[in-house]
Amino acid sequence: MDRTRLRRKPQRGSHDRAVIDAILDEALVCHVAFASDHGPLVLPTTFVRIADELYLHGAAGNAMLSALADGRDACLSVTLLDALVLARSAMHHSVNYRSVVVFGRAHRVEDPAHKRAVLAALLDKMEPARSTACRPPNDKELAATQVIALPLSEASAKARTGPPLPDEDEDAQLPYWAGVIPIVTTRGERVRA
Amino acid sequence: MDRTRLRRKPQRGSHDRAVIDAILDEALVCHVAFASDHGPLVLPTTFVRIADELYLHGAAGNAMLSALADGRDACLSVTLLDALVLARSAMHHSVNYRSVVVFGRAHRVEDPAHKRAVLAALLDKMEPARSTACRPPNDKELAATQVIALPLSEASAKARTGPPLPDEDEDAQLPYWAGVIPIVTTRGERVRA
Repeated sequence: MDRTRLRRKPQRGSHDRAVIDAILDEALVCHVAFASDHGPLVLPTTFVRIADELYLHGAAGNAMLSALADGRDACLSVTLLDALVLARSAMHHSVNYRSVVVFGRAHRVEDPAHKRAVLAALLDKMEPARSTACRPPNDKELAATQVIALPLSEASAKARTGPPLPDEDEDAQLPYWAGVIPIVTTRGERVRA
Repeated sequence: MDRTRLRRKPQRGSHDRAVIDAILDEALVCHVAFASDHGPLVLPTTFVRIADELYLHGAAGNAMLSALADGRDACLSVTLLDALVLARSAMHHSVNYRSVVVFGRAHRVEDPAHKRAVLAALLDKMEPARSTACRPPNDKELAATQVIALPLSEASAKARTGPPLPDEDEDAQLPYWAGVIPIVTTRGERVRA
C-alpha cells in the first residue's frame, strides 16, 4: 500500500511481521490518531496484539473507541525509545528507537467469548498469567466494556540502532564525548495496595 | 476551547501549565497527528518546550514537518507510563500515567538565531549543557534543518496516580495480589563510540 511506503530513511524500515510483532508485544502503550469532530486527535491507550489484530478496550461510552468502531480511517503508532545518541557535532545527534505505524479501520468485537479472550490477553501482557490470578469480568462488567480490533494488514516498522554516524574528518579529533546512552525501562519494586 | 475539554474522567485532568510543562519537560518523545494526503497520520519525534511553544526539528525535506508548517490542524500527544495497577478483579486493572494533549497549528522557525536556540535546547534536553559540549551546527547544517513551533495555547494534561480502586466487597477477600508495579525509566551505562 502506498501509505505504508517508508519515505524518510527507508533503509531503517521493515514490513517484516516478526519485526513488527516484537515491537508491538513489548510496548505497553500506543498512540491512536483519527479525524475527530474537532479535527485530528491523537490519544494514548493500552493495547494488545493477538495474531493479526491489535485490540483496544475501554468503557462502553468511550468516545474515541466509539468513533473508531464507526470504521473511519485510523493510524496507530507504537514507539520504544532505546537510547540517546551523542555525536561530536550537534548535527549527528540522534536517538535509537523501534517504532511501528499501523493504518486501518477498526471494528467492534461483539462476541462475549472473543471479548473475554482479548481482556485476558491485555491482563497477561501486564503480567504473565495475570488473567488467571484475578476475578474475571462478570457479564455486567463485560457489557460495560467495549473492545475494538484493528487489523495489521497495513503496518510497517522503523528502527535506528548503534553508535552515532562517523564524524566528519574535521570533527573526529574534537575533545567531545561521543557514544550512546541507553534508555532502560524496567519494572520497579511492587507496592501492595 | 471545546476541544481541550476533558470528556472521559475529567477529574483526572488539568489545564494547569505547571502540570503540563512538567510532563513535557520530562518526556523525550511525542506523537504528532495530522491529516496527511493519505488520511490521518501519527508519527513519533523528539521535541522540546521553550516558554509557550513546543518545537520539532528534522531534515529540510521532512514530509511531516513540511506538512505541519503549512499551518494545518495538528494534535500532539506526550505520555509517560508510570505504573501498572493490578486489582483483585480484572475490571479494576489500570495504569498510572501522565499525559498531555496539545491542539494547534504549527509554523516554521526561519530566524537562524532562533533555530540555533531551539537546537541547543533539544541537545540540552538529551543531556544537561550538551549544546556546549559538541560542535554547534554550521550555516550549511542549519540550512539543512527545519524547525517548527506549535503554541501551547490549547493544551491539557491528564494523569492517574495511586493504588487500584477499592475492590467490591465480594472481591476484597479474594486471595489475589493487588497493588502497583512501577515502570521505571533510567539512563543506563554509556557506551563510547
